[in-house]
Amino acid sequence: MREICGYTVEEYIHLIESFHGYLAPGLLIGGFMIDEATRELPEGEIFDAICETRVCLPDAVQILTPCTVGNGWLKIFDFGRFAVTVFQKNTGDGLRVFVDAQKLAQWGEIDGWFLKKTARKEQNTELLIEQIKQADTTILSRQKVRIKEEHLKKQKTGAVGICPICGESYPTRDGEMCRSCAGGCPYVMLADKE
Amino acid sequence: MREICGYTVEEYIHLIESFHGYLAPGLLIGGFMIDEATRELPEGEIFDAICETRVCLPDAVQILTPCTVGNGWLKIFDFGRFAVTVFQKNTGDGLRVFVDAQKLAQWGEIDGWFLKKTARKEQNTELLIEQIKQADTTILSRQKVRIKEEHLKKQKTGAVGICPICGESYPTRDGEMCRSCAGGCPYVMLADKE
Repeated sequence: MREICGYTVEEYIHLIESFHGYLAPGLLIGGFMIDEATRELPEGEIFDAICETRVCLPDAVQILTPCTVGNGWLKIFDFGRFAVTVFQKNTGDGLRVFVDAQKLAQWGEIDGWFLKKTARKEQNTELLIEQIKQADTTILSRQKVRIKEEHLKKQKTGAVGICPICGESYPTRDGEMCRSCAGGCPYVMLADKE
Repeated sequence: MREICGYTVEEYIHLIESFHGYLAPGLLIGGFMIDEATRELPEGEIFDAICETRVCLPDAVQILTPCTVGNGWLKIFDFGRFAVTVFQKNTGDGLRVFVDAQKLAQWGEIDGWFLKKTARKEQNTELLIEQIKQADTTILSRQKVRIKEEHLKKQKTGAVGICPICGESYPTRDGEMCRSCAGGCPYVMLADKE
């Protein structure tokens, strides 16, 4: 039976629903992608991952591998490309797996959804999920890549100071105040801190 | 007994180890923060979250709430501030909880670690974890905030095209080619795609 990183497809779907909240088609494809990207790695091999979209795919990585956003082993480059690379931290050598737009033609529902040809309300989600299961890895391509050196180093926080505006700690490499007080703050305060 | 979003502290520590790979002190603090930020919400209330650091804290949100990076309910602002905001999607009204540098003085090990006064090799991790458990929410402050309107809208991908350079699909709002081919690509190709 088809397994995705050691889970049956149905088990993996349960994990998606539990972690991601609902069965997003991209996460199902993501499972086949990560299985493909990791299946030839030696047992116990330590690796990092890069996602080239912030939509859906990062959750497949976080469900199926030890790499998470918070531990830094998963990095996201927000290119809007549905691609994941799994690579060795030391050498940067890795395998990149992506949905290949040129392999979708025979899967009408996937093609319409992935390339946004089908309006959302005309989408047949059941058929889409079924086609993704059937298509398996045939809609994917893979390529050997080497991650550039500047992306292999762990980004260190460096020295920490107290922001003179908000009074909170921040990395002093960001300048004389924190990046929130420098203009990035996403909120307005409704009351003083307590 | 102290619970963190319905888990005992020991249960939560197991979840950290399983998802994040190891017991990072920041994730333990993160648990108290998210419990604090969500405890007054009505049962079943739907909310979004913002983390102001990409280190550790996003994983606490992803373990303890329905918000993940991949489903977009968790957003990360990389300010290097150890703060999380939980807010209502419609109004933007929320509660921001953060580690208050001004409340650390009596917790020497936390103070030394959090403000990077203690060299890593002189850090007593066992004592640090113990102090975090004892300190509980006393090292946190909270403030009522309202998330600005531009951050409440769901960022839509919009139209999708095929990049003339790499042949992969990408959001056409990024320009005439994808952002990877435009110069952001983090890897070099070692072989053609297969």
